[in-house]
This record gives sequence, structure tokens and C-alpha cells, in this order.
Amino acid sequence: MGRATERRRIVRIRDGKVSARPDTLAAEEPLEIRLNGKRLAVTMRTPGDDFPLAAGFLVSEGVLAHRSDLTSIVYCAGATEDGSNTYNVVDVRTAPTVAVPDITLERNVYTSSSCGLCGKASLEAVRTTARFPLADEPGLRLTPELLTALPERLRASQRVFDRTGGLHAAALFSERGELLDLREDVGRHNAVDKLIGRALQQGLLPLSRAVLMVSGRASFELVQKAVMAGIPVLAAVSAPSSLAVDLAAEQGLTLVGFLRGSSMNVYAGEERLALEEPAHQA
Amino acid sequence: MGRATERRRIVRIRDGKVSARPDTLAAEEPLEIRLNGKRLAVTMRTPGDDFPLAAGFLVSEGVLAHRSDLTSIVYCAGATEDGSNTYNVVDVRTAPTVAVPDITLERNVYTSSSCGLCGKASLEAVRTTARFPLADEPGLRLTPELLTALPERLRASQRVFDRTGGLHAAALFSERGELLDLREDVGRHNAVDKLIGRALQQGLLPLSRAVLMVSGRASFELVQKAVMAGIPVLAAVSAPSSLAVDLAAEQGLTLVGFLRGSSMNVYAGEERLALEEPAHQA
Repeated sequence: MGRATERRRIVRIRDGKVSARPDTLAAEEPLEIRLNGKRLAVTMRTPGDDFPLAAGFLVSEGVLAHRSDLTSIVYCAGATEDGSNTYNVVDVRTAPTVAVPDITLERNVYTSSSCGLCGKASLEAVRTTARFPLADEPGLRLTPELLTALPERLRASQRVFDRTGGLHAAALFSERGELLDLREDVGRHNAVDKLIGRALQQGLLPLSRAVLMVSGRASFELVQKAVMAGIPVLAAVSAPSSLAVDLAAEQGLTLVGFLRGSSMNVYAGEERLALEEPAHQA
Repeated sequence: MGRATERRRIVRIRDGKVSARPDTLAAEEPLEIRLNGKRLAVTMRTPGDDFPLAAGFLVSEGVLAHRSDLTSIVYCAGATEDGSNTYNVVDVRTAPTVAVPDITLERNVYTSSSCGLCGKASLEAVRTTARFPLADEPGLRLTPELLTALPERLRASQRVFDRTGGLHAAALFSERGELLDLREDVGRHNAVDKLIGRALQQGLLPLSRAVLMVSGRASFELVQKAVMAGIPVLAAVSAPSSLAVDLAAEQGLTLVGFLRGSSMNVYAGEERLALEEPAHQA
């Protein structure tokens, strides 16, 4: 599609000097995701990888888990008055065996919880929809050195960021630290959905030997996406939230934050880290 | 409420040294926003300022514009089986004169547009709901020096960030560069909604002489929120997206990005900047 960036004229001010010049920006456009013809969600995203984005979104929502769940993904033409195709509406069609959520319920699982709306209910919602229990995949052991090498590899591979400074990045690495895939988007959740959707399309779920790395903070939503794709390790450059840590601990996901230089904080699942010395109480 | 941060035990790795210690994290919990008793949205937010958050969300959605539109905001008890109050569900009650959107339509204005789902439709949606045209408020002129002083003032006033590293900040400044209000949240959109909702509650909308500053990138959604609150200037530490720039240009909002040191990029509305020399073509 080649629409990941766009050019605009800007006024640049540097130490009192003013100049008008063209600049490259990260593109942002709405994408409507339909499930078997019914509208499910609209997300603001960077165009490109729209089919993986839609597929990955549906993995995160618990609708898709295997390549065979997916029949086809198409762009919908005719959404406009003149019948043209904006390439901003995709329809995901599922196999007859796939249980489709009741869309009229607003896809909101929180209220079905026994404890009302609270962090505990959010954890419960993931617990009841997760398809690939992380506890079933022991044996993955990573050295701190392997993890500390990842941020530089992520940055070195970021294609669009250098030009715009406006994109979040998410990458999948192998247990040997090899870059498997990298996606960028104005929304961090979209970048992760694009990675996971592509893995689904390639028949690679669950990603039970992979490390997911994100360029910024780790929210509840990002841990949820890792869990739903069966990814056992999530590493972030910045801080996680309380609920992200709680979900990681409950689901057995290894959550690493502040991964910078030779340092990191491990918030949950430290048993997957090969540490020479046991942690002592500070 | 005092729930903006939470403590968790973490494992810290620094240059090969491993230690277990307590750490302070930004709190994240779901908040359900109801409008006159009907569920409208769920957002993951940092607890605190929940009433301003709900009010500001409804300003952004075009439901509220003046203090008199608001009758009351309450926490809903009884959302749990045991009838206890989780303080995660708020109901916003509006005056009889307020037009309440048809919630069954999923609050999705995009499809009512003549051009289908595209960036143009997103711009049109804001155009038809904006209540405080920015063009009606000329005369605001800011020097580059005033703007370049804001990031340091924002950082100096950030209360929670220093402890957790996990929060986004948004602040309102006067046209003389005085800090008027500052809010933090795990979601940048929530921090902005908290600012705008508080201003609504204080009868300060439209904020036609204020500058909104955000700690990260500038998305379409953040420009939309500024426009809906009548804020004429949005300044961001990092890059805007293409659609953020397009919306700012169409609505007459001054959009500044990469505000760092003595430098900035002006993406739209440069007529509000007092520049000694006109911009020359680079």
C-alpha cells in the first residue's frame, strides 16, 4: 500500500531560526474491522498490514486461535457513496466451527464477571478466554545478556521511525535473540496485533518459544495480547502498570520492564531467566 | 482515592547483580462510564479524578459543552454480587436539554459520513460536532520562548511519573506560560480528558486562551479533544500523525511537535506564533 508515511509542509524553529520545509509524518487512518459482515470495531492505525492487524485483533479478542479458524479476509468496497474502495474496511470471515461472540453485547466481558467491574474482573476475562496456557510450555530459559541485546536490534531494524519519530514498534524475537518479525504503527496495540495476526496466518500460534518486545510501556492490554497468542515473555523499554504485572503473574508470563543498557526489572515469571545468583532481598 | 500507584515485588538486574526489592508502579484499572444509566464506554485508566475523566470523555464525544449540561456524577454501587462499590463505575447525568446520542448506534459517527470510512470522514465527524470554533478566538499570540519553557515546567510538576516511570502527563498552561492544571494517567487520552472534564466542572470551557501540552506523541484523538474543548494550541514533546496535522489545519488549531530544548516543529496554525522573521523556504 505504501501509505505508512505522508508528507506535509511544516515550519521549523531552531534556536530562533525559522524555516518552512516538507516533513515526513507517520500516517494515521481509521480501520473498521468486520467479523463475518458485522461491524466489530474501529481502530486508528497506520495503513499497511491491515489483514494481519484484523486477524491479530481477533486473536486478542479470543475469536481466532489457529490458521484454520480463518476462511478469508477482504477489503470491503462499496462502503462509500460512489462505491469506491477506501481500503479502510476489512471483513474477516471465519470457519463454521468458530464461535462468534454476540456483537450486540458490545464485546464487553467485564460485566459477566462475578466481582463487577474491577481489575480482578479484567484478569478473570483473560483467564476464561486464553487458549494457550503458558504453564504448558516450560523449559524456555533466557540469559539477561540475550534480553539486553534486543532493544538495539529493535532500533536497528525500525524502518519508518527514523523518518517520522511518530511510530511505536513491536518485534518478535526467537529464544536465541534473532529478530523474527517487526511491525510499526501509530498505536502500540496495533503493532502487536499486526505481529500476532501475521503469525496466525502463517500457522505459527501459539508462539511458545518467542519473546515479544515493545518500544514503550507495558499495559494490561499488551500483556493480554501476549497471553492470547501464547507468547511466554514480554519485554518493554519502559514501565509496566500494576494490572499488567498482576495479569503476567497470574498467567505465568515473564514480564520485563526498563530494559536498558545492561539493566532490567523483572516483574513476573523470573523462572525463565537464567540467573547465576539467586535474587537476594535488598 | 490514593490509588494512583501500587507496590509490587520485583527482581532487579543491574550489570549482572540480581536483587529482589519492592517497586512502585502506576495503577491501572477499568472504568465504566455510563450516561444517564446506560453504559457508554470502558476505559483502562489510573484511578483518581474519575468524575473529571468521565465528564471530559463526554466533552470529547460532543455530549457536554457547558457546566450547566451536567446534573451530577456518581459512583455506582451494587454493580457487584455483594452490592459493594468498586469505584470503577460512574454514571454521568445530564440536564434535560442535552441531546443524548443513540447509544445503540455504538457512538460511531464514521459511517454516517458521505465518504465512507477514511481520514476525510474522521475530519468531518469532528467538524459536525465541534461546539467552540477556534477561528472565533483570534488574537492569541505566543512567543517560541514561552513554548520552549513548557516541557521543563511539565516535568518539574509531574508527581507520580518520577516514582513509576509509567504515566503519561498532560497539562494546561495559560497564555503567559503559567501551569494551570496537570493530570497523569496510564493512558494519554485519559490524562487529557481529566484536564478537560475538570475545566468543564469549573465552568471554564471553552479554554480559548490555554495551551495543552502532552508528554508524548500527538494523535488524531488528542487534536480532537483539544478542538472539542476549544483549546487553540496543542504542543507535544514528540511527533504528530498525518491525520492529527490535517485535523489541526482544518480546525485552525496550532499544532506544535518535537518541542525540545530551543527547537520545535509547527505543523499547523503558525499564525499564533510571534515569529521575528517570516518562514523562508528551506
